[in-house]
Amino acid sequence: MLILMRADAGAADLERVLDLLRESGIKPQVTRTEDATCILGPDASKALNAEQISALAGVRKVVRISSPFKLASLDGAMGRTVVEVNGVRIGGGDLAIVAGPCGVESRDQLFTVARYVADSGVKLLRAGAFKPRTSPYAFQGLGLEGLRLLEQVRAEYSLGIVTEALDVETFDAVEAAADMVQIGARNMQNFALLRRAGRCGKPVLLKRGPSATLEEWLYAAEYILAEGNRRVVLCERGIRTWSDHARNTLDLSVVPAAKALTHLPVMVDPSHGTGRRDLVVPCARAAVAVGADGVLVETHCNPEKALSDGPQALLPSDFAQMVGQLEGIHRVLREAKGALSGLALNGL
Amino acid sequence: MLILMRADAGAADLERVLDLLRESGIKPQVTRTEDATCILGPDASKALNAEQISALAGVRKVVRISSPFKLASLDGAMGRTVVEVNGVRIGGGDLAIVAGPCGVESRDQLFTVARYVADSGVKLLRAGAFKPRTSPYAFQGLGLEGLRLLEQVRAEYSLGIVTEALDVETFDAVEAAADMVQIGARNMQNFALLRRAGRCGKPVLLKRGPSATLEEWLYAAEYILAEGNRRVVLCERGIRTWSDHARNTLDLSVVPAAKALTHLPVMVDPSHGTGRRDLVVPCARAAVAVGADGVLVETHCNPEKALSDGPQALLPSDFAQMVGQLEGIHRVLREAKGALSGLALNGL
Amino acid sequence: MLILMRADAGAADLERVLDLLRESGIKPQVTRTEDATCILGPDASKALNAEQISALAGVRKVVRISSPFKLASLDGAMGRTVVEVNGVRIGGGDLAIVAGPCGVESRDQLFTVARYVADSGVKLLRAGAFKPRTSPYAFQGLGLEGLRLLEQVRAEYSLGIVTEALDVETFDAVEAAADMVQIGARNMQNFALLRRAGRCGKPVLLKRGPSATLEEWLYAAEYILAEGNRRVVLCERGIRTWSDHARNTLDLSVVPAAKALTHLPVMVDPSHGTGRRDLVVPCARAAVAVGADGVLVETHCNPEKALSDGPQALLPSDFAQMVGQLEGIHRVLREAKGALSGLALNGL
Amino acid sequence: MLILMRADAGAADLERVLDLLRESGIKPQVTRTEDATCILGPDASKALNAEQISALAGVRKVVRISSPFKLASLDGAMGRTVVEVNGVRIGGGDLAIVAGPCGVESRDQLFTVARYVADSGVKLLRAGAFKPRTSPYAFQGLGLEGLRLLEQVRAEYSLGIVTEALDVETFDAVEAAADMVQIGARNMQNFALLRRAGRCGKPVLLKRGPSATLEEWLYAAEYILAEGNRRVVLCERGIRTWSDHARNTLDLSVVPAAKALTHLPVMVDPSHGTGRRDLVVPCARAAVAVGADGVLVETHCNPEKALSDGPQALLPSDFAQMVGQLEGIHRVLREAKGALSGLALNGL
Repeated sequence: MLILMRADAGAADLERVLDLLRESGIKPQVTRTEDATCILGPDASKALNAEQISALAGVRKVVRISSPFKLASLDGAMGRTVVEVNGVRIGGGDLAIVAGPCGVESRDQLFTVARYVADSGVKLLRAGAFKPRTSPYAFQGLGLEGLRLLEQVRAEYSLGIVTEALDVETFDAVEAAADMVQIGARNMQNFALLRRAGRCGKPVLLKRGPSATLEEWLYAAEYILAEGNRRVVLCERGIRTWSDHARNTLDLSVVPAAKALTHLPVMVDPSHGTGRRDLVVPCARAAVAVGADGVLVETHCNPEKALSDGPQALLPSDFAQMVGQLEGIHRVLREAKGALSGLALNGL
Repeated sequence: MLILMRADAGAADLERVLDLLRESGIKPQVTRTEDATCILGPDASKALNAEQISALAGVRKVVRISSPFKLASLDGAMGRTVVEVNGVRIGGGDLAIVAGPCGVESRDQLFTVARYVADSGVKLLRAGAFKPRTSPYAFQGLGLEGLRLLEQVRAEYSLGIVTEALDVETFDAVEAAADMVQIGARNMQNFALLRRAGRCGKPVLLKRGPSATLEEWLYAAEYILAEGNRRVVLCERGIRTWSDHARNTLDLSVVPAAKALTHLPVMVDPSHGTGRRDLVVPCARAAVAVGADGVLVETHCNPEKALSDGPQALLPSDFAQMVGQLEGIHRVLREAKGALSGLALNGL
Repeated sequence: MLILMRADAGAADLERVLDLLRESGIKPQVTRTEDATCILGPDASKALNAEQISALAGVRKVVRISSPFKLASLDGAMGRTVVEVNGVRIGGGDLAIVAGPCGVESRDQLFTVARYVADSGVKLLRAGAFKPRTSPYAFQGLGLEGLRLLEQVRAEYSLGIVTEALDVETFDAVEAAADMVQIGARNMQNFALLRRAGRCGKPVLLKRGPSATLEEWLYAAEYILAEGNRRVVLCERGIRTWSDHARNTLDLSVVPAAKALTHLPVMVDPSHGTGRRDLVVPCARAAVAVGADGVLVETHCNPEKALSDGPQALLPSDFAQMVGQLEGIHRVLREAKGALSGLALNGL
Repeated sequence: MLILMRADAGAADLERVLDLLRESGIKPQVTRTEDATCILGPDASKALNAEQISALAGVRKVVRISSPFKLASLDGAMGRTVVEVNGVRIGGGDLAIVAGPCGVESRDQLFTVARYVADSGVKLLRAGAFKPRTSPYAFQGLGLEGLRLLEQVRAEYSLGIVTEALDVETFDAVEAAADMVQIGARNMQNFALLRRAGRCGKPVLLKRGPSATLEEWLYAAEYILAEGNRRVVLCERGIRTWSDHARNTLDLSVVPAAKALTHLPVMVDPSHGTGRRDLVVPCARAAVAVGADGVLVETHCNPEKALSDGPQALLPSDFAQMVGQLEGIHRVLREAKGALSGLALNGL
């Protein structure tokens, strides 16, 4: 922990800080110049955190030294994590594509979409049986019936199923039906749900919250990792800003920024990230180009009849063309790899 | 529902929209001028929502006509709601003050704070037994032991207890111990928790999410109301913006803006809303002046030893002075009331 | 300057930083613990800034020690600045009210508003002769003709005139006509204009930019102060966020936060800060309560005919009532002053 | 103009709106259903704008019908604009790369960077002679001396020069020296400067303001176009949000969103857009993939000695590799073009 004292801090202020550190078993080193005093010591433990020191009179700034993400951190990790789902490797330089409708609406809808998704060579299907909805009066998903349909469609098309768990109550059922369990953006800091996901036997896709910093996102991953589940994939899905041409602002630079801090794979969801069908394909291409390990996109056989998020669902024809473009860009990156200097490598 | 077609929409586009409306039993009225075509009809039902129509080719904008908050809306409400907790009226022109430490840390800490809170004339004590924490390694609250201490302190000082329920699993225990159950900002869209709060026998304090619009906040209240619990109080606690002098940006204009839409009382939490002790008293005054029905503030007998949020906790002496100032401002507003025109009244 | 090295920084990285510091004449002190290395030295001069050091390999964080605002800073200032305009003291515990229409539209409109503003006891009139407009096709103000009308209205009602200078080209004319020159939000970082304002013989009202941090705002003030004009008043007018119930988010906690850093007075403009007439009076009250030195509000005799910003202009009757409420709240604060502890004083 | 009345609006409210429209020569058509009343008519002229109507009692929402960007709009444009600078086509499916240091610092620095930029095949050099700086005490650029160096480097390496004009006072000198004049982000709503750029004989690169919506950005372009200069190129450079892993949030989805509204080319500046060297190459790739007409990047021969923005400058080696990657991705897009459906085309 590095502590900078305020210019107007007195000797008593300094003593108080040092006392608190010593009480916690920390041996501080004090440096003084004409203008400033700073204290350096090991990071505080559970018994004493940076926040508490900030609360002391005369303290201007407290900087943590080591990464607070013991398990998610790239520092000290044994290489980057690769999460395998239905034979698809997420991470490790591969490109994973997950596609499907926003929600399971009917057997007919689900199977129609699954067929053209599978035909395009994609092996992971996304679709929600439980839907988090802003309004209590909106379509909330088919629930358990939706999970049954997902099990059937998996059997029929050999697709791995990615579907969201909304709460602890229905987690068991989702876990049983899914090949990968999604934690949605609004639940990124639902700590009970994160802990349950950490005790889950399936890989977890953790969406970034709409107002979560990179640090908070990694802390959320840490909640899952700390319970023992190491198969966690991060997914950027747009953040809330005032920029109003799209439903969210897709924060693509977070992908290489996250990879500079964590060993976990990072995917991108350009469908929720924009909310506009005409922006999804360009942003999916950009996601691959920025170095994401994969994309999660919504596609629907008949978007105008979709019960949720129709405006952002790709048409079947656009979807097929997108897959080709993403693979082309991924090839360019693969060929470039190895030729790059260390810094730029973060984005690959 | 009011639908404006794009200038380049063709006759087929228009027909498709009209078909979809008619299929849903809506009789649309079409108006055409040289430049534009618009469609007016009753709002869509569950079977057809504005989003679906937006997804159609040629549609430029869809505007809902009636309020989507059937129960939270001021339109059609029988006056403004007043929620009574431990003899304190929240709403109806009174000023409610809720104060206490961020978390229950020990019997000693809790009773010390409770004593000076009670001495100042405040009748509602806040303190968390279950604490939502960004890091899995931070102090998570005393849990059930904390609830027991809250029950003891209530008995000792005749204080009403406001405390947070973090998840459905521990809700029963919190409900039993609390006089008012708080739903925290990060859980504003934890829909399972909102539904449980809606079936709760105690009043609910619903914090605004850090990136929730006013509309989303009211939808969250609607989730609670729709389950039957009508004793809901909203609480603004700062939103996440890029403005970095404080931990959050306290969005005080949302108080009169909310009161223009809903009959529910609105409180303000300037402690989380700023995260800096030196900003709490000024912002608490501003909250009363803007027309809030009350404030929720953190105070600690020894902030530098606080296990959470010490930097924003008021010292006992500041707290007592603040109470006097808030009452003074509240008197000014009360005297002014009645003399104001309709528009300005929203803020009172 | 306090520099924390990254955990993985090597001896060569450290040497490079030290070399750069020594080249700039800085004698650094190095502190090492098992986990960390930090360097402490005087702040860099013009020849070497924090940014340059951040660019070096192995550097994790650079913290400046002294305030970068030599002239705007409260540290080392001889008390708080009071700016007098037309006999009104802005700062020093007084309450300054500036009111008037958004723009000068006609002699009739200007004189009608000026009369009721003067009748309410307010001594400062705001109105723009040059209007910054998002669209090139919108009403751009009456220009020089507007300035002439302002001179006439001043003579007639003994009102001090606050009006905006849009560019260097028309600054002379504005300076001649005004008692206080306003720099608008969009021009907060128009550095040529700031320098010109710094050579101006009239006090300057510096609006905060819609996406300016407190630090950037003070730097903008520093541009003016550095040219020799010490009569600068800051004015918060709302910032751009995603919160969509109002045109801007009025960031009231910035008032006490600014007063903790600078000796300059701080006003608030709740009209631009909200853009909604029904929120203006509540937010003006909140501005006074939070400790602002005054408010700047828009009022119009006939808002629906206003050529700009009609939706936020107060009606004459609301305006008069607002003045009474603001004075009432100001009295409460005055009485409380002196009784407060040091920290809370920031807000007064 | 489409006007939706509030549910509680009375007959008098409606009459007032209709009167105001008729006074302005607009013939309104009124549609009524049981729940709602709406008015449709041609858009208001200069004499009556949407804002004024919003100010009337009983009005809930006003929607403009036609594009407010007469000259920037894609609607009615004769194809997409291509701007040629030094033989490089910006727009029309080509990929334009502009590179160079943030500021001109010395003859040696400028020529060294220019040499390796030219060697990589890039034909446009960026470098500022006049630098907008947050602090009045920071390096402000070499000014006229910098312009002279730019003229020399152009002659030596046959590079087209892109450099910023900071104010009207120095615009003539910049215009004479530059092949393309840049308007910086902080000046996006400096209307005097925009008008001057509109009377300039060189193409203009218009950076997006850090808190400008797409609409406001197009209005700024409209200011330039309306003065007669049709050679305008837009440039996204990151927006201000709370997401703190990078200096700005690069808003890449604005590229296809802008192209859906305007015929002007759109470039991206990933250097200012991220402020971190390790994010620049990934984000430059993403910019090309999202469909930008080019990128503007900062590179420096010796970033740690850079007088401004060193932390974001690419090293010479990274720069050369980036160029190869961008060309590879651009080829993938070119090949895909034509195969895409209309909607996805926006991004190409």
